[in-house]
Amino acid sequence: MIINLARRAHNHNFELDPIIRSVLDTDFYKLLMLQLIWKEFANTHVTFSLVHRAGDTPMAGVVDPDELCAQLDHVRKLRFSKSELIWLAGNTFYGKRGIFEPDFLDWLEHGFELSDYDIVAHGEQFSLHFHGLWPQTTLWEIYALAIVSELRTRASLKYLTEFELDILYARAKAKLWGKVEHLRVEPDLRISDFGTRRRHSFLWQEYVVNAMTATLGPSFTGTSNSYLAYKLGLEAIGTNAHELPMGLAALARNDDELRTAQYSILEMWQNTYQGALHILLPDTFGTTQFLHNAPDWLADWTGQRADSKDPFIAGDEYIDWLQARGRDPRQKLFIASDSLDDDLILRLHQHFAGRIRFSAGWGTLLTNDFRGCNPQTGPTRANFTPPRTVCKLTEVEGRPAVKLSDNYLKALGPPPEVERYRRIFGSAGMANTPIRT
Amino acid sequence: MIINLARRAHNHNFELDPIIRSVLDTDFYKLLMLQLIWKEFANTHVTFSLVHRAGDTPMAGVVDPDELCAQLDHVRKLRFSKSELIWLAGNTFYGKRGIFEPDFLDWLEHGFELSDYDIVAHGEQFSLHFHGLWPQTTLWEIYALAIVSELRTRASLKYLTEFELDILYARAKAKLWGKVEHLRVEPDLRISDFGTRRRHSFLWQEYVVNAMTATLGPSFTGTSNSYLAYKLGLEAIGTNAHELPMGLAALARNDDELRTAQYSILEMWQNTYQGALHILLPDTFGTTQFLHNAPDWLADWTGQRADSKDPFIAGDEYIDWLQARGRDPRQKLFIASDSLDDDLILRLHQHFAGRIRFSAGWGTLLTNDFRGCNPQTGPTRANFTPPRTVCKLTEVEGRPAVKLSDNYLKALGPPPEVERYRRIFGSAGMANTPIRT
Repeated sequence: MIINLARRAHNHNFELDPIIRSVLDTDFYKLLMLQLIWKEFANTHVTFSLVHRAGDTPMAGVVDPDELCAQLDHVRKLRFSKSELIWLAGNTFYGKRGIFEPDFLDWLEHGFELSDYDIVAHGEQFSLHFHGLWPQTTLWEIYALAIVSELRTRASLKYLTEFELDILYARAKAKLWGKVEHLRVEPDLRISDFGTRRRHSFLWQEYVVNAMTATLGPSFTGTSNSYLAYKLGLEAIGTNAHELPMGLAALARNDDELRTAQYSILEMWQNTYQGALHILLPDTFGTTQFLHNAPDWLADWTGQRADSKDPFIAGDEYIDWLQARGRDPRQKLFIASDSLDDDLILRLHQHFAGRIRFSAGWGTLLTNDFRGCNPQTGPTRANFTPPRTVCKLTEVEGRPAVKLSDNYLKALGPPPEVERYRRIFGSAGMANTPIRT
Repeated sequence: MIINLARRAHNHNFELDPIIRSVLDTDFYKLLMLQLIWKEFANTHVTFSLVHRAGDTPMAGVVDPDELCAQLDHVRKLRFSKSELIWLAGNTFYGKRGIFEPDFLDWLEHGFELSDYDIVAHGEQFSLHFHGLWPQTTLWEIYALAIVSELRTRASLKYLTEFELDILYARAKAKLWGKVEHLRVEPDLRISDFGTRRRHSFLWQEYVVNAMTATLGPSFTGTSNSYLAYKLGLEAIGTNAHELPMGLAALARNDDELRTAQYSILEMWQNTYQGALHILLPDTFGTTQFLHNAPDWLADWTGQRADSKDPFIAGDEYIDWLQARGRDPRQKLFIASDSLDDDLILRLHQHFAGRIRFSAGWGTLLTNDFRGCNPQTGPTRANFTPPRTVCKLTEVEGRPAVKLSDNYLKALGPPPEVERYRRIFGSAGMANTPIRT
């Protein structure tokens, strides 16, 4: 066997193994939101912050801050490639070509750049802050989360021998396959990959997405990861997230503007995108108040994504609301995206069958479920628990951004401001649910 | 990434992927027996035959006879390499250097060759026959079995996609690891690999042996595969097998010579090998009669291997016999080598703890356990059941060779001849036990 001498030498040479290698390696909804932000909020100054949820594994002593900086610096140097821009321009998204406007694509090519970052150490954790114009900061969310997640994976992988690594991945593959076999019994399922942000690693996410593609047939509808969609010819999945209503709400000059921000932002969305992209995410300040006060045109939207409420309750509530508004729920789509795993997906599918179209946005437990896979035993063994990190909009033009969500434990913002939002939006339908990942 | 163009081109060029690539890729006991056969039976004409046990998966339509011939032809061209001969001469086997005599090593280098072969198709199976001088035929046993086993593996692998192959091996690794974890709780275990003949493939056996080496520590005592012992620096394990008493018995000119053949061959063994290599295999014509009539010097031998009797009964019988002969069983070794798996190994270890040294020769269920690993479903899926093939001495100087064994289902030979042997040896302690693999 003739050795590839150049590769062997190169493998001993390289200084950085980049985690993010393409600007597209982000959730597709970030690109959709970026276009809206670029149009409507090009000059708005914001801050995104990466923070750890309570109980997260410490990063200090595990992740080297210099390595973290090297990874973040690498992302700042990335630009959209020619082929990636052509794909954004020429590809069909949600059945429609040309959803990205030529001026926006031109800006992606010539004007796009990412803001600088600050690392702040506090106790056992680092937090990251990204200050800048909204179009320069929003994409940091997924890059930062995926980098932190994979750096922690790499730190754990270091403790395993080559053979232990082989067993780790063999078990993870066997486990993934167990889930696939479990799900294959139900051909009407609709599942997509939503697992970029807290993935084990890029390569593992790619493996998982390839596995789902190869085996689930039409039940696997695509991936939220734009780069994997581009590379593998899959549907890019996703629409919008909390940062939009949070941002507009933070800019509100009075309580009335605050109350209507959650709807005004969707009017802007409607001016930019059509049809299948009209998916509500109603839980930013509480789903129950959102639906109760919603203008009637929102009942014409295509569907709803539930991200913090018990999805059985959220789906039933949406169905009731549609019926009360005289719409047929069987024409609508209900997407669950919070802490899903194979068993919950099947139960939700059964619960909603024939009542509303159901789709699962499967996240961390698809792309980072290594429970029981580590062959090491004992208290000092490496830890493959996914991080409990979020990266959220925290400030807009100097004013705090707030999220209430349907789960008290997922609320974000300074306590007095959260109090003010609760006074305005109430807390109907909210609950205390432990956050799994 | 720079492609290794030469390798890519070569991978499209090659005509044969040889299964057996070294003459050493055989059970170590074949080499020990070969030396004795070379000394004592150099001019004896014998036949080895590869036959299928009842219920074996058909080979016709699965294995291409041309491919089988190409593999067998490749083996005939192999010779011992310089380094291999030096290893045989210079390595310590069972604590002793120089167990292979210079004249024998010289013959291995200059005189060794394998006989020709005949393929006979009957019904859904092929059988193989090897006629020639005993030293030219004996090594065919393991080569032929390993070739048939791996050709069947390859035939099944053809039906799997790349992704399905990946899952197959991931599951097999996870399964192997489950067994290792099960066995690791008992640090006093002694296990060696006896799985060459019906292995899934050479590479899988190598993986398994590496895994055991990396994780079981001193509990993994070595491998019966001489090539893997040579390549990986492990202990080569094994002593002798049924072909020796079967051969001498077939040559017996009368019933008295037949009765004593099973002991005479061990005298020859004793003249060639010492100490740790003195392991009885008493079941060729039935263990109970063997022990009952054995000359007393056999109670001085190091241990016994049980290959066809329920190993709990065989071990207890050996212990009782040693005590009746005034020997301390705790100084002796009892080896089980028939249809072992992790659970049975642990139960046998517990059963014999403190009473006799116990060692497990783990075969097919170590190197070819793919039960439940195939990701394909349905009746047409590929089959990874290990073959139920044996390759045995069937004729010596025109006279049939016979094995009775402790299991009626494992008896070999023409029925009238088996009858004659049964008349002479009786059937004390024999049983009907289904053959697992």
